[in-house]
Amino acid sequence: MVGVSETKMGRDEDGETNMAAWLLGIRNLQIQPYLLPPLGPHDVEVRIKALGICGSDVHYFKNMRNANFVIKKPMILGHECAGIVEQLGSQVKSLEVGDRVALEPGSSCQICNRCKKGRYNICPEMKFFGSAPTNGALANKVVHPENLCFKLPDNVSLEEGAMCEPLSVGIHACRRAEVGPETNVLIVGAGPIGLVTLLAARAFGAPRIVIVDVDDCRLSIAKKLGADESVQVSTNIQDVGEEVVKIQNVMASSIDVSFDCVGFRKSLTTALSATEAGGKVGLIGLAQGDLTIPLSSAAVREIDVVGIFRYRNTWPLCIEFLSTGKIDVKPLITHRFDFTQKGIEDAFETSAGGGNAIKVMFNV
Amino acid sequence: MVGVSETKMGRDEDGETNMAAWLLGIRNLQIQPYLLPPLGPHDVEVRIKALGICGSDVHYFKNMRNANFVIKKPMILGHECAGIVEQLGSQVKSLEVGDRVALEPGSSCQICNRCKKGRYNICPEMKFFGSAPTNGALANKVVHPENLCFKLPDNVSLEEGAMCEPLSVGIHACRRAEVGPETNVLIVGAGPIGLVTLLAARAFGAPRIVIVDVDDCRLSIAKKLGADESVQVSTNIQDVGEEVVKIQNVMASSIDVSFDCVGFRKSLTTALSATEAGGKVGLIGLAQGDLTIPLSSAAVREIDVVGIFRYRNTWPLCIEFLSTGKIDVKPLITHRFDFTQKGIEDAFETSAGGGNAIKVMFNV
Amino acid sequence: MVGVSETKMGRDEDGETNMAAWLLGIRNLQIQPYLLPPLGPHDVEVRIKALGICGSDVHYFKNMRNANFVIKKPMILGHECAGIVEQLGSQVKSLEVGDRVALEPGSSCQICNRCKKGRYNICPEMKFFGSAPTNGALANKVVHPENLCFKLPDNVSLEEGAMCEPLSVGIHACRRAEVGPETNVLIVGAGPIGLVTLLAARAFGAPRIVIVDVDDCRLSIAKKLGADESVQVSTNIQDVGEEVVKIQNVMASSIDVSFDCVGFRKSLTTALSATEAGGKVGLIGLAQGDLTIPLSSAAVREIDVVGIFRYRNTWPLCIEFLSTGKIDVKPLITHRFDFTQKGIEDAFETSAGGGNAIKVMFNV
Amino acid sequence: MVGVSETKMGRDEDGETNMAAWLLGIRNLQIQPYLLPPLGPHDVEVRIKALGICGSDVHYFKNMRNANFVIKKPMILGHECAGIVEQLGSQVKSLEVGDRVALEPGSSCQICNRCKKGRYNICPEMKFFGSAPTNGALANKVVHPENLCFKLPDNVSLEEGAMCEPLSVGIHACRRAEVGPETNVLIVGAGPIGLVTLLAARAFGAPRIVIVDVDDCRLSIAKKLGADESVQVSTNIQDVGEEVVKIQNVMASSIDVSFDCVGFRKSLTTALSATEAGGKVGLIGLAQGDLTIPLSSAAVREIDVVGIFRYRNTWPLCIEFLSTGKIDVKPLITHRFDFTQKGIEDAFETSAGGGNAIKVMFNV
Repeated sequence: MVGVSETKMGRDEDGETNMAAWLLGIRNLQIQPYLLPPLGPHDVEVRIKALGICGSDVHYFKNMRNANFVIKKPMILGHECAGIVEQLGSQVKSLEVGDRVALEPGSSCQICNRCKKGRYNICPEMKFFGSAPTNGALANKVVHPENLCFKLPDNVSLEEGAMCEPLSVGIHACRRAEVGPETNVLIVGAGPIGLVTLLAARAFGAPRIVIVDVDDCRLSIAKKLGADESVQVSTNIQDVGEEVVKIQNVMASSIDVSFDCVGFRKSLTTALSATEAGGKVGLIGLAQGDLTIPLSSAAVREIDVVGIFRYRNTWPLCIEFLSTGKIDVKPLITHRFDFTQKGIEDAFETSAGGGNAIKVMFNV
Repeated sequence: MVGVSETKMGRDEDGETNMAAWLLGIRNLQIQPYLLPPLGPHDVEVRIKALGICGSDVHYFKNMRNANFVIKKPMILGHECAGIVEQLGSQVKSLEVGDRVALEPGSSCQICNRCKKGRYNICPEMKFFGSAPTNGALANKVVHPENLCFKLPDNVSLEEGAMCEPLSVGIHACRRAEVGPETNVLIVGAGPIGLVTLLAARAFGAPRIVIVDVDDCRLSIAKKLGADESVQVSTNIQDVGEEVVKIQNVMASSIDVSFDCVGFRKSLTTALSATEAGGKVGLIGLAQGDLTIPLSSAAVREIDVVGIFRYRNTWPLCIEFLSTGKIDVKPLITHRFDFTQKGIEDAFETSAGGGNAIKVMFNV
Repeated sequence: MVGVSETKMGRDEDGETNMAAWLLGIRNLQIQPYLLPPLGPHDVEVRIKALGICGSDVHYFKNMRNANFVIKKPMILGHECAGIVEQLGSQVKSLEVGDRVALEPGSSCQICNRCKKGRYNICPEMKFFGSAPTNGALANKVVHPENLCFKLPDNVSLEEGAMCEPLSVGIHACRRAEVGPETNVLIVGAGPIGLVTLLAARAFGAPRIVIVDVDDCRLSIAKKLGADESVQVSTNIQDVGEEVVKIQNVMASSIDVSFDCVGFRKSLTTALSATEAGGKVGLIGLAQGDLTIPLSSAAVREIDVVGIFRYRNTWPLCIEFLSTGKIDVKPLITHRFDFTQKGIEDAFETSAGGGNAIKVMFNV
Repeated sequence: MVGVSETKMGRDEDGETNMAAWLLGIRNLQIQPYLLPPLGPHDVEVRIKALGICGSDVHYFKNMRNANFVIKKPMILGHECAGIVEQLGSQVKSLEVGDRVALEPGSSCQICNRCKKGRYNICPEMKFFGSAPTNGALANKVVHPENLCFKLPDNVSLEEGAMCEPLSVGIHACRRAEVGPETNVLIVGAGPIGLVTLLAARAFGAPRIVIVDVDDCRLSIAKKLGADESVQVSTNIQDVGEEVVKIQNVMASSIDVSFDCVGFRKSLTTALSATEAGGKVGLIGLAQGDLTIPLSSAAVREIDVVGIFRYRNTWPLCIEFLSTGKIDVKPLITHRFDFTQKGIEDAFETSAGGGNAIKVMFNV
């Protein structure tokens, strides 16, 4: 277990000690004081009220690492969050104390080539809540740039505000793959990312959406959330050919865009094989290492594979979709926990458990 | 060996017997009569003067099949060709007898969704010279639609006209990957397709082009054709990491677009690994079956993989490039043969030999 | 009045005489025999059942000309139509006798550069129902290419099928201006074209739509069809500044795309002035001659003006929208007439009258 | 004349007094001290060595205003500049003292929607050298953000570095109008902006470029700079029809993109009329007030009008073009002056004179 000596007492001027959930070692989360960084002129201080657990949080929790990001000292997890503005930096103009805001977790450099071209999500200097070594937001309070805090209208709850983060992944995927009223969509995988992609594709006007998964229970949730058809598939790569025929039959039209929300050999093989010539495959679920896939036979049909990493400029659209009711994320929130030592332990074990949890939410 | 009974005597009204090179079996090509199809109102009859051998022709020659296309009865090979107009259909307006023309070999249905949207190269009803079961153009004469015969200016030779076909693959690849003065290009593979892609990328304004191959001789040709730098690579997948560093070093700038002109695990792994975040990988060289590749780690950098199949609307641009001298394809023509029984045998064996031949050309 | 001597008796093999509404002179329409052109192998014969009158038909009716197209001999009007297949050309595969079909009225050459690139709507060889000198479809029967006849599902009526034509203009405009869930839309003009553009923009997911017109009655129809807000405007160019402020206020968000469905100085000035920097103005309504407009002050805000001419590849999407109920065109059909001498006279006078007619439909 | 009381003594720590050319009133420029703003952590101090005069500088000089920007207090002009880094902010990493740099003059907010989407050139918070009320760069030294200072390679002079600014307008125009090897380009106007657009279009691969102007002398310069053909035109709007025929004849191919670099009724009418259906018209030269133009007849040919405002992300490409020799801007520099009281007076009068000056450059 790594030490916690770097963290200092987090007491602020009001005498309140700001607390956060620090990951100290594998499956070892402790609520301890968190001294906030200084409030810059363009920052706001936000009291976190709702925070969802993401698969990457669970990876850190279970392994002290996520992909290539390794935790070397105690770190606060959490990046799907919303809260209430408590303090304003000297130059802040668009927000007021008391505003309810959803937080976009990643802060880019704004001046590299990618940022200047509007692709700030792949900024090499990105600082992202709870992505090592940057602390996350599972805390009483955080400091965050004004331009990444988006005011929620009255009819959007703080929990829904926290859901803007996973929803943004689906939104960005639909934008990148140019989903619209002329693209029938196949979604491979009905986990949290598959489901937000389904919601996003529906909101972008996809006329027909078919979703596949190994888990019948997830598929029935997907049907309730608006999938036109679902197909239960096996984990056996040998079944792909037959399953693709079944998928194409239930689509009963061209499959113009497929999203692989799993990132396994079989899921991507399914997406590549099922998609119509000239279509697109969006790769959202991400695997470690190599994948053995029929990419050439997709390429001769001029299928493009679109890489999708996080999102950019998505919060306003998420809030629009939520406030107009075009998207309802509430059914995705299956579990709620308090921000207590027992609460965080139970919440992460529930998320890690692989049971029927879709989204586990903290009410801080 | 399949029979040849379907072919009839190909004598036309002038008493000349039209002859063609029929593939009768593996490595068995015979010059035999070829009765032309009737000349439709929008067709022209073209006397073939130059025809190049493509890798797909060699596949048929060696295996009686190419990818999923199987030859079941005698078939004429050849699709890279140019010739002289000898007869005009009743409605032909844009051409005259005696015009020197380059032939685009694929005739699409013009009315399916893909054709209507301008993506006629993936038309499911495509009839393509020398792609089973459609006969090719290695013959004295062929009948072809007027709109696929492009008049050559005086300063473009018939051999150069025949080279429009392979060059079109490079052109289409550059269009699809949006090559321009702001995209540095990596080309993996310095065979005929790699070299035409190099020529096309140069003509599209790519500021820097690096090319890699296992064969030092091919690389030196590539350098002469305009590659800024070359890197000789191994066939060992273990070397990819080290080679990618070397490739990025010689590029000395971002690699914005990579073309895999080989279609092997290693070539595509190299392309995916070397490309800058936000860039594109064009897949031109096509493999059979599955490829084991690091697609996820490219996708998290939002690299898009672009499938490239043949070409569309490329002949006018090819002719423009050739006639203005922006592209010189003549150095690619390394061997020439006559259209005789011995000539076709020697030519195909030379192409199949894997020696230093780049483009083998018939002077019919 | 021009003569009618070119038309012959239109009696077919069943002994039925095919009748059509010929425009013989200004405001002079006569039902007379129409001998159908021969049925080509890829054509079908369609018995017209529903046909709507378009503004361009009225222009011909009133002036014997429309823009630069002048009628020099008797011509059949009408191009918004649907009917029932009665006879199949020898090569027709996708349709059967008895199929209910909507007809796309324009037949392009399929082989010019624009057609090959998928922009067939600007094909210079276009033959278009009722656009001089091509005869239209206000007849008992017409002959039309199979690929331009789109089968209607059971839940889409023939009248709705005929409405695919005007709706296509709105669809094409939304595609060209890239309307989607992130573009608030301003529509200038609430005539038939403004209203179909409104329906299309809604179906493409535009979050907010504001419509303006001089006519309060039309605006109330637009509100019923789904406009979020409407603004009544004057015909006085001096009022533009004030009206633009009002329009922006009721939008209460950025105006990302504006459509000018009128084509007057004031309508286009309104669209150019109201649109957000970086947005688009689609020009659908078309004026004769010059327009005096503040184009430079729009250009410095990088507003692009998008020219919109007819449509391409829109029927399948129209039918999708109609059959799923995303678009309901029925409220646009305000008047119905029979295909009799009195019916055609009354129908055209109603259309030309400028009263409260939106769409006048024939039941043939 | 406005007062100068706000300006303070500009003496820095070295005892040197930084001097700048202040515009105090119409045609009244005075070299006076300029106290630099404090050097921020991400700023550099640059000693200006070369600065060109732009048409907008001349507008200010002659009218104390440019379009809607009015000078209300003394202001320093100039924004086309290059110099040598003299001091580094505490966080500057990419530059060193002594580096020769070209300066991009506009500093955007980086956090508004437009900036986040990569369209920072239309940022409403833009601070731009010499655009009221922001001071310009006609001074001994300026302070500027590191990310807007681009290091020049050894083979690009400081004068060429200063020319990156006007060249950027041409680059941005070519990008916006998607100029490439398949777009023949018409340029209306052979002034400085027309000429840099010509250079840019050539570098982007335009196969044929025709340029028109009223001034035969400018046209001959354009021919030397690479225009394929030129057409001298009148200022009479009646001549447009005839001139367009002449222009299309000398192009001898489709005109795919036209740039109006003048912004007058006649220039834009010419561009709109000459362009091929489906093409683009880029509007660079900007008029005050309304323009009377045939926009509808362009719109029915689906011509898009693209608004062009300044540029974004252009310096690296400019430097690439200059250092590889693909663009040579040196012939555009026709006059040079010293940074003295007499020098600035003479330079501005030369620029304002409307004689044969193309680019007037200061050697500071």
